[in-house]
Amino acid sequence: MEKELNILKERLQEVNDLESASAVLAWDQATYMPPEGAAARGQQMATLGKLAHEKFTDASIGILLDKLRSYEKDQPYDSDDASLIRATRRQYEKKTKVPATFMAQFYQHTAESYVMWVKARPDNDFKAVQPLLEKTLELSRQLANFFPGYEHIADPLIDFSDYGMKASTVGQVFNNLRASLVPMVENITSQQPVDDACLHSSFPEDKQEAFFIDVVKDFGFNFEKGRQDRTPHPFTINFASSDVRFTVRYKLNDLSEAIFSAFHETGHALYEQGVNPKYDGTTLAGGTSSGVHESQSRLWENMIGRSRSFWEHYYPKLQDYFPAQLGDISMDAFYRAINKVQRSIIRTDADEVTYNLHVMLRFDFELALLEGNLAVKDLPDAWNARYKLDLGIEPPDNRDGVLQDVHWYSGPIGGSFQGYTLGNILAAQVYETAILAQPDIPNEIKQGKYKTLLTWLQDNIYIHGSKFTAPELIERVTGESLHVEPYINYLMTKYGELYAL
Amino acid sequence: MEKELNILKERLQEVNDLESASAVLAWDQATYMPPEGAAARGQQMATLGKLAHEKFTDASIGILLDKLRSYEKDQPYDSDDASLIRATRRQYEKKTKVPATFMAQFYQHTAESYVMWVKARPDNDFKAVQPLLEKTLELSRQLANFFPGYEHIADPLIDFSDYGMKASTVGQVFNNLRASLVPMVENITSQQPVDDACLHSSFPEDKQEAFFIDVVKDFGFNFEKGRQDRTPHPFTINFASSDVRFTVRYKLNDLSEAIFSAFHETGHALYEQGVNPKYDGTTLAGGTSSGVHESQSRLWENMIGRSRSFWEHYYPKLQDYFPAQLGDISMDAFYRAINKVQRSIIRTDADEVTYNLHVMLRFDFELALLEGNLAVKDLPDAWNARYKLDLGIEPPDNRDGVLQDVHWYSGPIGGSFQGYTLGNILAAQVYETAILAQPDIPNEIKQGKYKTLLTWLQDNIYIHGSKFTAPELIERVTGESLHVEPYINYLMTKYGELYAL
Repeated sequence: MEKELNILKERLQEVNDLESASAVLAWDQATYMPPEGAAARGQQMATLGKLAHEKFTDASIGILLDKLRSYEKDQPYDSDDASLIRATRRQYEKKTKVPATFMAQFYQHTAESYVMWVKARPDNDFKAVQPLLEKTLELSRQLANFFPGYEHIADPLIDFSDYGMKASTVGQVFNNLRASLVPMVENITSQQPVDDACLHSSFPEDKQEAFFIDVVKDFGFNFEKGRQDRTPHPFTINFASSDVRFTVRYKLNDLSEAIFSAFHETGHALYEQGVNPKYDGTTLAGGTSSGVHESQSRLWENMIGRSRSFWEHYYPKLQDYFPAQLGDISMDAFYRAINKVQRSIIRTDADEVTYNLHVMLRFDFELALLEGNLAVKDLPDAWNARYKLDLGIEPPDNRDGVLQDVHWYSGPIGGSFQGYTLGNILAAQVYETAILAQPDIPNEIKQGKYKTLLTWLQDNIYIHGSKFTAPELIERVTGESLHVEPYINYLMTKYGELYAL
Repeated sequence: MEKELNILKERLQEVNDLESASAVLAWDQATYMPPEGAAARGQQMATLGKLAHEKFTDASIGILLDKLRSYEKDQPYDSDDASLIRATRRQYEKKTKVPATFMAQFYQHTAESYVMWVKARPDNDFKAVQPLLEKTLELSRQLANFFPGYEHIADPLIDFSDYGMKASTVGQVFNNLRASLVPMVENITSQQPVDDACLHSSFPEDKQEAFFIDVVKDFGFNFEKGRQDRTPHPFTINFASSDVRFTVRYKLNDLSEAIFSAFHETGHALYEQGVNPKYDGTTLAGGTSSGVHESQSRLWENMIGRSRSFWEHYYPKLQDYFPAQLGDISMDAFYRAINKVQRSIIRTDADEVTYNLHVMLRFDFELALLEGNLAVKDLPDAWNARYKLDLGIEPPDNRDGVLQDVHWYSGPIGGSFQGYTLGNILAAQVYETAILAQPDIPNEIKQGKYKTLLTWLQDNIYIHGSKFTAPELIERVTGESLHVEPYINYLMTKYGELYAL
């Protein structure tokens, strides 16, 4: 079987090279491409995408996978070879079950929706996108139906980003979380609002950058295997485990913008830099799911980066960078400012406590829309009512309501949002496990040291790349399935202290 | 025939997308890639190159070209369709006549040579590369022999970069030039050397950059369709006529380094930005030959950028950027400094007058080696003797002698150098023609205006992309074949005045 396996690996390498090349082109498009280079770039990326898809879905790949079935069964489940064959088969089935003509129609439609949304949002014009969104819903249902035998129609769509997570499991976990969060938000927001003016004076970008570069190097980001650039929307991208890049957005009058997006993206990047380099060029390269990926960005951004222990070490350094702005601000005042909780209508601006309420209502709407229990035309009213119910605040218009996120206007309805909150929940579960295994971690963090934590995360999560599905990985790492208690404990402890809950 | 032509264009677009993607990867490799990204990048570029080659040399392309033969004959020679078919057939024959196995062997060998050269040059160790160079020579002969029927064995190799230029024609033109240059260099270098200390104080990079950006914008470089970055070795690269990028190298203590390399690369870039956008994605995209390309870089760098008229306008602006360094330096002293002629041993550091002597001796050695009239083992002595004869100076060692250029250690012997001097000769021929057609050009240059010149170059050269071969284009543009008199006149006038020849 060695021969078939080697042929498979060669083919996967070729597909991976095309996909990585396309990723370089995407990175360049977002960072340095001159404006008029856009049309040719779109053409180049379309060609690379088409070739990668053709090569991966070629019938010969299916034949190789069939021939390798018995070999796979003879290998240990968690061996590299069995995992490679298993992960490749899963991808192959996903990509061959949906006809290419359907995907072309789907991309064509979402491209049109996106163009309309870019206009409709500033115009506050939901009516303009409504028929397109109705078609998106219909196409999303069709897409799901290429994978018959599901328990819930959202399950195949969730599988695209969080394989193995079912609507029922996620829904139950989310309901548990919501039951704790809604009263917590009510309690906090009934108190005197925190003064965060200290974050909103003027902070020169080069000093913001110098500060967070110091920090992410301490975290363990390796600049020999990656870099950092500036873009309007921060992201992390990788072309190999040895070339992982993240981007950051600056706001002169908001110190938290660049710093916390740098910590967040560094979390994603540490994961990618930590994947076993043996997996480069194979289906096992890269992080395993959107939820697990988000657990790492959130762990480094929030559980570390917004913790008191972290700032005990770094706040004096930050004050050195900004003596005029922060010299007179106490560590405690700063800590409260960066952890200010408030009712808000925009998901991406939300604090750690309210953020998940934004996500979970979107998840519920995706299910309701797919089930046929909510019509697209009724979405704006339902949206506003749910904001009132969960967050105690209603969007003044659709622009900052149902039109705020790009997801439904550029991709399917279903599977788009759950990863954000799964990430938060997982982060707490993982962090709790790490500290149990390595009790020195909290003390090291107070000293700006991350080696023990990073090594533990690398050995237990990062190294595996996509070898395990998210549910498998969670079970392996924590010995338990996904559950919400560690996250609720984390929030109760941290915000209980901050707000005397 | 429209159907076959459209299929051909679709195939060429795909090949072009792969090649452009590979160019983006190469640009990133030279500019921003983190060090450890190199191995994966090499793999990605190899895959893109292999796929582009497979797709372009596919038998179906040959069948399409055959079917299109009669259609091609019915179209005017200079029509887009006939030119596309003609240029594609030329490329197809070039790429299919050489077996893929031979090219793999050749690339493998030159990759090894390059690695050895990187070590051997600082070690001044010609013996280390001699056997590799002997094999390069043998492989270069084999490569040429895949194209039987040549007049001189170098001709097929010259065709790779300067299609249609024969060793005999080039040799004759070069001999004429050399006959004028050797005595000119003798005369100039017998005089008191020019003092160029004013170029060698300290010039902050950001100000150098600000100055040359002003200038290249005036030249007509469009930053909406391109950009500029920093690399150790300056180059120009394009992914479409709407995305053309150049790079520059800075030296703090040499003002001429960045500025003139910016002008040089901008010449290449203006050519690429000026190609008919209709040709994007086809065989007609991009400049037509290394000599014609170099004629444009040299025209903008030297004939414009080192001219008295140019500096009459820009020198006061340069002084504003560097008041401490240049405030007390007269325009005349500066002009003499940037045009200082001296005997030198390094080609890339040579001035306008001596530069071609460096190139022409390399060209002659390529012919002699290929003919079998010079053995690789005798090259270092022959090299030093020829330097003594032509330039009146002998390299102190092989490091700064026969080991100085990368070309023979990373590619074939034959066709590697002639383009540099062809470019200088052509630049003068083209510039003379432009001024005859548009007599206002010299006056406009004194005012820092380039619209008339750029428009003339665009309409007569740039727009055509690769539609015409270099000899065809020269004939169309100047009404004459390649000849050296305008260039000798240019040098005699400029340096006659500077050195009272």
